Amino acid sequence: MKIIFDKADLSNGVQIASKAVPNNTTMSILECILIEASNGCIKMTANDMELGIETIVKGSIKQEGSVAVVSKRLQEVVRKLPDGEITMQTDDNYNVIISCGKLNITINGRSGEDFVLLPEIEKKESIILSMFTLKEAVRQTIFSIGISDTNKIMSGIHMMIKDDQLKMTSLDGHRISIRKIQLRDSYEEKEVIVPGRALSEISKIVGNDTEKDITIYFCDAHMVFEFEDTVIITRLIDGKYFNVDRMLSSDYETKITVNNKEISDSIDRSMLFSREGNKKPIVLNISEGILNISVNSTEGGMDDEINIDSSGREIRIGFNPKFLLDAMKVIDEEKIDMYFVNPKAPCYIKDANESYIYMILPVNLS
Amino acid sequence: MKIIFDKADLSNGVQIASKAVPNNTTMSILECILIEASNGCIKMTANDMELGIETIVKGSIKQEGSVAVVSKRLQEVVRKLPDGEITMQTDDNYNVIISCGKLNITINGRSGEDFVLLPEIEKKESIILSMFTLKEAVRQTIFSIGISDTNKIMSGIHMMIKDDQLKMTSLDGHRISIRKIQLRDSYEEKEVIVPGRALSEISKIVGNDTEKDITIYFCDAHMVFEFEDTVIITRLIDGKYFNVDRMLSSDYETKITVNNKEISDSIDRSMLFSREGNKKPIVLNISEGILNISVNSTEGGMDDEINIDSSGREIRIGFNPKFLLDAMKVIDEEKIDMYFVNPKAPCYIKDANESYIYMILPVNLS
Repeated sequence: MKIIFDKADLSNGVQIASKAVPNNTTMSILECILIEASNGCIKMTANDMELGIETIVKGSIKQEGSVAVVSKRLQEVVRKLPDGEITMQTDDNYNVIISCGKLNITINGRSGEDFVLLPEIEKKESIILSMFTLKEAVRQTIFSIGISDTNKIMSGIHMMIKDDQLKMTSLDGHRISIRKIQLRDSYEEKEVIVPGRALSEISKIVGNDTEKDITIYFCDAHMVFEFEDTVIITRLIDGKYFNVDRMLSSDYETKITVNNKEISDSIDRSMLFSREGNKKPIVLNISEGILNISVNSTEGGMDDEINIDSSGREIRIGFNPKFLLDAMKVIDEEKIDMYFVNPKAPCYIKDANESYIYMILPVNLS
Repeated sequence: MKIIFDKADLSNGVQIASKAVPNNTTMSILECILIEASNGCIKMTANDMELGIETIVKGSIKQEGSVAVVSKRLQEVVRKLPDGEITMQTDDNYNVIISCGKLNITINGRSGEDFVLLPEIEKKESIILSMFTLKEAVRQTIFSIGISDTNKIMSGIHMMIKDDQLKMTSLDGHRISIRKIQLRDSYEEKEVIVPGRALSEISKIVGNDTEKDITIYFCDAHMVFEFEDTVIITRLIDGKYFNVDRMLSSDYETKITVNNKEISDSIDRSMLFSREGNKKPIVLNISEGILNISVNSTEGGMDDEINIDSSGREIRIGFNPKFLLDAMKVIDEEKIDMYFVNPKAPCYIKDANESYIYMILPVNLS
């Protein structure tokens, strides 16, 4: 194999493919990126058996061939290469020689014969949305997936299409996050559970471009993402997602409207006294026009007051501050509405037309 | 105690004092910053028994008093404070209440009675130099101090004044770094060994200002640094420094002049194959007008060529690439001169008038 690329293209290709390389694996071939040059096309592939990425890299092929290289090693080397035209070639022992001017770097490769190629998937129905929209929707829901080996379903994000709406839902035992996205077209109803990790890696790869689109194919056991020169395949999580609608309620006794930055800053400060170790809840005390936020621990405490718009009953309710803050961080609106029923019932942060709903369970105050 | 300061002043004072707080200590009072408000002056002090810092903080005293607060905690809290006017007061139990508008944060303090104040030192002779000059001289020598408990002297930087020159020297078992600094005035001859840690913390505090001066006092067992509103005291290391002049030589068989960025980039790349684990030396091969840099390991290798000006014999010599790179990084000149004798003798990187000398021992090539 002998290929010539510009350093920027090589670097970009390796960056993209590396996202499907697992951090820990006992199968050494999974640590590799497969580089293939054939039929006028340079392709880099990585596959951790759940998530697979295939990306086409610009460059010219002087001699066809293929080689598998440990992703981490390849990334390190590429990072140190000077800018400009890079030649990559292999010898008979699958050594990979990367050259630029008088510089030659040799790293060990392997034949890639035992590389597990991406499955051939019959692409069925698809939807199209902008890269930016997908990236935002993932950011706004992924933080509340449940990381646990005992409940695989919780570790995914539920994606549901109905007419021209995509609804993304995630939950762990303490909170539910829902985002609804308006699509350009209407589609047949469908729903899948996509592994959180896959969506997280995909959103690292796709740009912030609102102009550029991504096509998502819904297949039987897989989902395929296609954009620019890249194809990403992820296995779906098997099973039926939770009946989230049944967990939600729109009744409330207290409603407040508060400046997001003011409440976020205050809750952030309260976390000085609520660490992993002590798990001290913070107390929200709502009276007319005033939100009091306080926390007390053996290390000291905080007491703060924020002016709010409020209606309904006064309430005193405790929360894990991180759960409130996680939701507030991903809401871009300057003001947020919060709904409360009683100190034992969940709190809702949502906008008027429910384009987002964040439900958070309170903590018992003794 | 009750003090009012602007957040920026409070934050700056805590930052400075915290540099003398040790990371690990069994004496809990050493983890604290002592805040004293008396005689119209707010002072923050920290002292790890070797290094002590005292800084005056702008602010107004409403009620005199003093309190000791754990530095780490105080830093965390100050970082989260909103900008503006901050009130800090203590109650009878040494709780410290920090307020800003309607926000009140309480952290535990202690009386500070057992705080070890900085020693009273009789200031003797002093020298004056710009903050920037001191900071640069430290940066350019500190990387080659020897970190070892068995040889305390190696863990310091030797500072020697003679006429209008300050000479800073550091060494570990593999290399020597020397910087000579031209002072504005002439002084009596003196020499001390200053702990590396003290100089490192000092250079974090002093700004990059070439206009602002720092005064250094040479006392019997201590050295005192004074600048702006801050006084830093460090114990000196007792003992006689190595006779470095006897270790240096200006004979050479080969001299090269090379672009610093070109050789640094190439050596940096060679480190892809020379890690902590394998300690593979890199090989410099000098022939007329050409420097070849190469390294080979089980993981692969590198081979690079740089155009140089050379004179004298051809030579093939091995080095720990980190040692070469450490020196090259702190030389600001575009071109550097390197001098070699034979593959077993040290290499010198120095300028024509020896304002800097970096001596590096080679590694045996088998």
